[in-house]
Amino acid sequence: MKLATLKDGSRDGQLVVVSRDLAQAHYATGIANRLQQVLEDWGFFAPQLQDLSDALNAGRTHHAFPLDPQQCLAPLPRAYQCLQRAESLSEETAARAGMPDMVQLAGDAMLGACADIAAGSTAMEMDFGAGLAVITGDIAAASTPAQALDGVRLVMLANTLSLRALEARERAAGLGPLLSRPATAFSPVAVTLDELGAAWDGGRVALALQVGLNGRKFGLCDGVAGMPWGFGELIAHAACTRPVRAGSIVCSGPLATAAGPLAQGRAESARGFSSMQAKRRAEAQEAGQASTGYLQPGDVLRMEMKGSSGASLFGAIEQAVAEAAPWPQ
Amino acid sequence: MKLATLKDGSRDGQLVVVSRDLAQAHYATGIANRLQQVLEDWGFFAPQLQDLSDALNAGRTHHAFPLDPQQCLAPLPRAYQCLQRAESLSEETAARAGMPDMVQLAGDAMLGACADIAAGSTAMEMDFGAGLAVITGDIAAASTPAQALDGVRLVMLANTLSLRALEARERAAGLGPLLSRPATAFSPVAVTLDELGAAWDGGRVALALQVGLNGRKFGLCDGVAGMPWGFGELIAHAACTRPVRAGSIVCSGPLATAAGPLAQGRAESARGFSSMQAKRRAEAQEAGQASTGYLQPGDVLRMEMKGSSGASLFGAIEQAVAEAAPWPQ
Repeated sequence: MKLATLKDGSRDGQLVVVSRDLAQAHYATGIANRLQQVLEDWGFFAPQLQDLSDALNAGRTHHAFPLDPQQCLAPLPRAYQCLQRAESLSEETAARAGMPDMVQLAGDAMLGACADIAAGSTAMEMDFGAGLAVITGDIAAASTPAQALDGVRLVMLANTLSLRALEARERAAGLGPLLSRPATAFSPVAVTLDELGAAWDGGRVALALQVGLNGRKFGLCDGVAGMPWGFGELIAHAACTRPVRAGSIVCSGPLATAAGPLAQGRAESARGFSSMQAKRRAEAQEAGQASTGYLQPGDVLRMEMKGSSGASLFGAIEQAVAEAAPWPQ
Repeated sequence: MKLATLKDGSRDGQLVVVSRDLAQAHYATGIANRLQQVLEDWGFFAPQLQDLSDALNAGRTHHAFPLDPQQCLAPLPRAYQCLQRAESLSEETAARAGMPDMVQLAGDAMLGACADIAAGSTAMEMDFGAGLAVITGDIAAASTPAQALDGVRLVMLANTLSLRALEARERAAGLGPLLSRPATAFSPVAVTLDELGAAWDGGRVALALQVGLNGRKFGLCDGVAGMPWGFGELIAHAACTRPVRAGSIVCSGPLATAAGPLAQGRAESARGFSSMQAKRRAEAQEAGQASTGYLQPGDVLRMEMKGSSGASLFGAIEQAVAEAAPWPQ
């Protein structure tokens, strides 16, 4: 099934079930109002939502209405935990210890798929990061990657926004990102694994993530070759020393591309880039210096993943960089 | 007023108002069930809770019952954001840029004041960290420290648990703490600023935090000299590039002590240590090597802060290190 959360003036919004073709939505009222509730008691709520989903897809509901992605909050608008695999700074660190580098992000305000990006000062070098994310149920401490994968409830697209000018300082201080990660945006819809069919490949999504900037192709990123670790490994790593609770979000970070340090020799199908930084690195390698800049006011980003039939799976992230606002509010 | 959250089998527990002497509690049912609700609409809920608090302190309620700290969850059992000032690794990094070093922690499962500490493997070097924490309302992006301080709603004690053996690796990788911060525990009770009276000193608490280990004094830490930055500075720093939302927890981290790098010349009143690492550093400075170990199964920790009248302000954190459990569950 496919789930989304619609704006209703509250911080957590209203849960809706969305039809497979993303055209229709139906409030889940009477089952659950908020996605967090569902994640805390998945075995109880999921079958009821699945029944509603089946009825919606069969045209058997009477109160369906057209889905407007502009009205979508993030599927989970607030999360008690949001983790991201950090991009590796070099091949050397990527290889270190055979363990994913992961960081903790704020979970207090996720962005919806069509939310404006506050440019802040352009001197801060705002960048996007095109990737995937999962939402988990309860994961026991010291779970294996296979056990962790059993706890994955939903998959969605994620745009991890970064302020690159602040990132280096935070890394050098050994602190992980704080000021350099102002927000993360998610696709309108989150889907259960069965919606992905054979494309759900042991913790990775075997499909291409299309990234566009101002109407031009920027990247066609590979959901398998672009993820050096699958979601099972990422979640199990986070659960090494403690349980990970229901409603935790785990983001892949920007998918690695052919020019990135991790995907060399593995990503022939990946073309283009999942972030401006990745493109800048490739330019620097080829030409000695980067010619691409960072995000500017007025820029429009688009991210979408299509299934083998060509239909959009999660809906599109489509965000404009706001002109005025000096800071995200 | 003083607030606590009692176990009721749910993840978020039941909000209670607690009498000033910590002896009596009264369910806030009819006003709000969960503290997060209150934080999201403080102006609406706080006056109603204050009325209940006044009635409880005057002995005018009919359904008060004795407060049992064993039945307390953390005042805010789950948080959408939990930040901590990181201990500085050296005087050099402490002085860098005149800015606090802060890290993002998981908010999905806070420990109650009497919750056992899972020892994990002793090879992981489990340490405690005695400090204070505040819970915020909504803080606008780019707030000044004074504006940020206006958004502080509640103050409590915090015991930041660390796995020191994992910390160095995570710092070296530039990632910030993830596996090395398995959990944070909080005092039974969180209090509004008026409960602190003159001891609330512009974002610091001008009182001593008593730390005991196995019935012996371990530290008497100074809430002013031990905090190189006040809570206004810490919150404003976190809000540099984005808003900080209602229900965010900001922890001081272990209060600096006289032997620590930050408090030299400022902390004559601080005696002893707020973590085993701080004691080990002092031993290493004096004797060339540390003689104190890390936490062991069976150890019992105690942290308490008393007001000028000698009464406990927040109740005590009193945690035993569990014998068996290999991992926190």
